[in-house]
Amino acid sequence: MDTTLVPGNSLITATPEEGRQLAVKMARLVIKATQQDEAVRDKLRDVYANDASMLLQVGQVVATEFATIAAANNYWRK
Amino acid sequence: MDTTLVPGNSLITATPEEGRQLAVKMARLVIKATQQDEAVRDKLRDVYANDASMLLQVGQVVATEFATIAAANNYWRK
Amino acid sequence: MDTTLVPGNSLITATPEEGRQLAVKMARLVIKATQQDEAVRDKLRDVYANDASMLLQVGQVVATEFATIAAANNYWRK
Amino acid sequence: MDTTLVPGNSLITATPEEGRQLAVKMARLVIKATQQDEAVRDKLRDVYANDASMLLQVGQVVATEFATIAAANNYWRK
Amino acid sequence: MDTTLVPGNSLITATPEEGRQLAVKMARLVIKATQQDEAVRDKLRDVYANDASMLLQVGQVVATEFATIAAANNYWRK
Amino acid sequence: MDTTLVPGNSLITATPEEGRQLAVKMARLVIKATQQDEAVRDKLRDVYANDASMLLQVGQVVATEFATIAAANNYWRK
Repeated sequence: MDTTLVPGNSLITATPEEGRQLAVKMARLVIKATQQDEAVRDKLRDVYANDASMLLQVGQVVATEFATIAAANNYWRK
Repeated sequence: MDTTLVPGNSLITATPEEGRQLAVKMARLVIKATQQDEAVRDKLRDVYANDASMLLQVGQVVATEFATIAAANNYWRK
Repeated sequence: MDTTLVPGNSLITATPEEGRQLAVKMARLVIKATQQDEAVRDKLRDVYANDASMLLQVGQVVATEFATIAAANNYWRK
Repeated sequence: MDTTLVPGNSLITATPEEGRQLAVKMARLVIKATQQDEAVRDKLRDVYANDASMLLQVGQVVATEFATIAAANNYWRK
Repeated sequence: MDTTLVPGNSLITATPEEGRQLAVKMARLVIKATQQDEAVRDKLRDVYANDASMLLQVGQVVATEFATIAAANNYWRK
Repeated sequence: MDTTLVPGNSLITATPEEGRQLAVKMARLVIKATQQDEAVRDKLRDVYANDASMLLQVGQVVATEFATIAAANNYWRK
């Protein structure tokens, strides 16, 4: 597998906002590793960004990734 | 990514009600970040708000986000 | 958001049965907040209550909400 | 809500097998509370029991309920 | 319910591999308990084994069952 | 079951990146165990790699597997 799956090779982030961005990136990188043709990915991204049900699927995946990242960071509690 | 993904950059809220509102907002912001055209989002929102299965998908996403926020707040136990 | 999302503003309940009822209510309130027209909600409720796959979706959402509420109550262990 | 949602009003069971049975029952009781007409439920049960994708949905719901029950019982570790 | 739902009536396994096999079996046993006609199950198994989306559903169910089994075994940490 | 389901028979990895790769592999091995005909799997892989909704399903499965692996590794905290 040549695609990097975890940017920075760490789940630890300084803030919730950065943790959320990491969740979005990690979700996208799995799709990239599964469909390696950039032109196909661009076409499919246009499909799901314009479909209500698929946008909700995106939301579900990001919520699941974020749960893991948030736990890794002890929820950024001070 | 220009869209703010975590309002207030914190998962900590004073009450369960505020935690639930944060879950709803965080779910919406992922959709906003994925589909940045407001007119398209308005149209798609009208689609999922009038579709029984998609409303249940909304419920699933919010439930997942809320699980993380509730854990972050130690379930607001006193 | 005018809809109350967490009845009683607490995840703590006296019993598992009450926790389960809270899970059902919280799931419904997210749908209410997303589709605020009562007539539309009644129509859509009739749709999902008569569709096998959507009833299973209801079950999935309630199971997810209940997981959070059960953890909040330390599973009502004595 | 007149339907009992948690049989015995407890998540504690003597064994994993009983915990699994409770998961199946709790999943069914949410459906019962949502669709209270027994004749309709029987018809819909016939639908999902003969549909591969819906049987997998049943599996997903039970897996989610069981996760909560297993945690409540400390996984029946001895 | 006559179908055994948890083989060996325990979530504890010697290794991750055995835990994963248990996850697959537990997922199948819920389907067996829901559709008790073996001929129908064989036909439906042929359906989902040849459908990309349903195979991914299988993966989702097994992942969820495995999460519980892995936690029960403290992740087989040494 | 002849297919190995957990490569190396361990959930412990040196880094998040390796943990993520393990999540992807474990997800694929369940599909392999369910559909053992390689030619069919290749055909179905081509289906889901070119379908936006199924790619999101892949993302959901991997996110769920990764949650378990990340917990097993205490999130690779130092």
